[in-house]
Amino acid sequence: MTTIYEKALEAHKTWQGKIEVTSKVKLETKEDLSLAYTPGVAEPCRKIQENPEKAYDYTWKGNTVAVVTDGTAVLGLGDIGPEAALPVMEGKALLFKEFSGIDAVPICLDTKDPQEIITIIKAIAPTFGGINLEDISAPRCVEIERALIEELDIPIFHDDQHGTAIVTIAALINALKIVNKNVSDIKVVVSGTGAAGSAIIKMLVDFGVEEIIAYNINGVVGKENQNQMSFLEKEIASITNKENFKGSMAEAMSGADVFIGVSAPKLVSKEMVSSMNKDAIVFAMANPESEITYQEALGAGAKIVGTGRSDNPNQINNVLAFPGLFKGAFMAKATKITDNMKLSAAKAIADIIPESELTPEYIIPSVFNENLAEIITKEVSAAAIKDGVIR
Amino acid sequence: MTTIYEKALEAHKTWQGKIEVTSKVKLETKEDLSLAYTPGVAEPCRKIQENPEKAYDYTWKGNTVAVVTDGTAVLGLGDIGPEAALPVMEGKALLFKEFSGIDAVPICLDTKDPQEIITIIKAIAPTFGGINLEDISAPRCVEIERALIEELDIPIFHDDQHGTAIVTIAALINALKIVNKNVSDIKVVVSGTGAAGSAIIKMLVDFGVEEIIAYNINGVVGKENQNQMSFLEKEIASITNKENFKGSMAEAMSGADVFIGVSAPKLVSKEMVSSMNKDAIVFAMANPESEITYQEALGAGAKIVGTGRSDNPNQINNVLAFPGLFKGAFMAKATKITDNMKLSAAKAIADIIPESELTPEYIIPSVFNENLAEIITKEVSAAAIKDGVIR
Repeated sequence: MTTIYEKALEAHKTWQGKIEVTSKVKLETKEDLSLAYTPGVAEPCRKIQENPEKAYDYTWKGNTVAVVTDGTAVLGLGDIGPEAALPVMEGKALLFKEFSGIDAVPICLDTKDPQEIITIIKAIAPTFGGINLEDISAPRCVEIERALIEELDIPIFHDDQHGTAIVTIAALINALKIVNKNVSDIKVVVSGTGAAGSAIIKMLVDFGVEEIIAYNINGVVGKENQNQMSFLEKEIASITNKENFKGSMAEAMSGADVFIGVSAPKLVSKEMVSSMNKDAIVFAMANPESEITYQEALGAGAKIVGTGRSDNPNQINNVLAFPGLFKGAFMAKATKITDNMKLSAAKAIADIIPESELTPEYIIPSVFNENLAEIITKEVSAAAIKDGVIR
Repeated sequence: MTTIYEKALEAHKTWQGKIEVTSKVKLETKEDLSLAYTPGVAEPCRKIQENPEKAYDYTWKGNTVAVVTDGTAVLGLGDIGPEAALPVMEGKALLFKEFSGIDAVPICLDTKDPQEIITIIKAIAPTFGGINLEDISAPRCVEIERALIEELDIPIFHDDQHGTAIVTIAALINALKIVNKNVSDIKVVVSGTGAAGSAIIKMLVDFGVEEIIAYNINGVVGKENQNQMSFLEKEIASITNKENFKGSMAEAMSGADVFIGVSAPKLVSKEMVSSMNKDAIVFAMANPESEITYQEALGAGAKIVGTGRSDNPNQINNVLAFPGLFKGAFMAKATKITDNMKLSAAKAIADIIPESELTPEYIIPSVFNENLAEIITKEVSAAAIKDGVIR
């Protein structure tokens, strides 16, 4: 039997590239050439020289994203290098085009130095209307993203952080509707404080969750040992675990309403799920193998289960968010992506499913939902205008 | 009356980008997604991680060029900045696709520091099969190109240098057939020792020209004042003006067989052309206004005249060379572009016109010649294999 991996390898060999750069312009006569190239092209050049903002009128800039990686945290494969990351970045570019019509260009960098990565992205920015950071390991990804947001006036978005967070919050919004709990009343345990985990925690706070306890490889994130923490862990410590709980994750999960895992396989047992509060929500998203399987979590009494896998119901998948999010930012000519824009995207994704259709197996729309990108685009664009972050 | 510039501006506003990134892959079902993206994409990633050369099998790398500029020497417009250079780079990408099917990506850099440009291009190289440097001012362009050739194992090509040189030599090959002169017998005067001029001079030497006198803004390039020269001018000085001629360009042109201008408008008078040897060849390529007009040069007695303009016969146009040249390098999996590959391209361009069809008004094929890119590709590919510069 041919596995999906063998099939995919064969397909990639046939494609030799999943994307291509194609012409939007007829080029059959000397006059065509003189319009699209010399001498005619000199005129848009002059206009942009007078006012660089005119690049949005006369070039592809306003609809183009660079998908930039250093290949250090690719899928579940880890630090595989820039060449090996290229198939994923091409895939990402494919998704940008298919789901929102955005032109996305893979850029795989042969350097891991955060300062050099920042310098490079700043330098290539004139060509692009936005930067999608991808598969860069934590906490470097956060450092890089923050510096670029500070220094560039185009949308910068690290999808592994915020894309995951947006879709997780969307799933949580609908799950809470089903179990009829208030966001301010729930207790959430998060396993993993890397790129995805830290962004999810911050977005949970923005969304109104008051009680969060976070775990990572060193155990519970608390008030002690802060001098051994990264800047990112310190930030997490400052907004979680208000009562400085010191117990194990099993102990924290007892009575919790929600478990969110973006960590490693098999960290959660059936007993831990059984000990949760009534109508427990379990999002076990470690890839390719989750913290607890969909079936085990249900069997242990969870009311609603989501994973990262496409072969279970409720796949919590970044593809739902980033195409519409960037399109919305581009529509509004946004200079950055604000917390409100992210939250608007999460709400838009959740609200696509009418409340009457929500079930424990259907809290997240399909990536092939035809209205998805358009609705996210509209909501994100409106949020950008409301936040006044437009050029 | 609407000028070409007004028309071009309007067209660029309509296009909002002359190129786009499109999908080569069907994406309609969950299975399509799992082949092109997760989880299937992990397999080509793993194969490339084991051997980065496999990127040529499983990604777009082997057919993709980055068109990189810093916007310092764009067309005749000069240092107009990276945003303003983008319409030209998009045009270049358009030409790559139209004439040789290569996927080209514009990269406009917001830095003028040669070391930083080298660092950036090295870092982005994993994504691309070749680098086309474009519109970077001299002598920085030469410094940048040489460093990259040294440090990367993919073809690096500065089109303003070598593209111009290749097409000039192609024109010269056919012009010499018409006037029936031997390359080793001719005296050539070159006006301009920037990117194009210096590359033309080196290629003239490779081609077998023995007597060259070069001029630039400081006058004749000779043996004196070398401590005031750039490294590039010193190189030119070492291969030209063997008898250390010290006169003016008007004096040097007296009795010369060929004038090649890549300098500035109106530097050449009718009298200077009249003083040249019988069957004089004048390539006056300054843009947009040439050293002497096509009509004036003919009127002054030149046998064959070429310019950079599309409204005269014999347009010496880079578009003739670079698409086929890169395609040939890609076909052979070349690691660099050698002098032989460039000379093969020049000869291929010249030989497309059968000798029986050559006239003083027809020494250069049309850019729309259907066989052009294919023949250049074949010859350049063969030269790469012969030179052994293949992976």
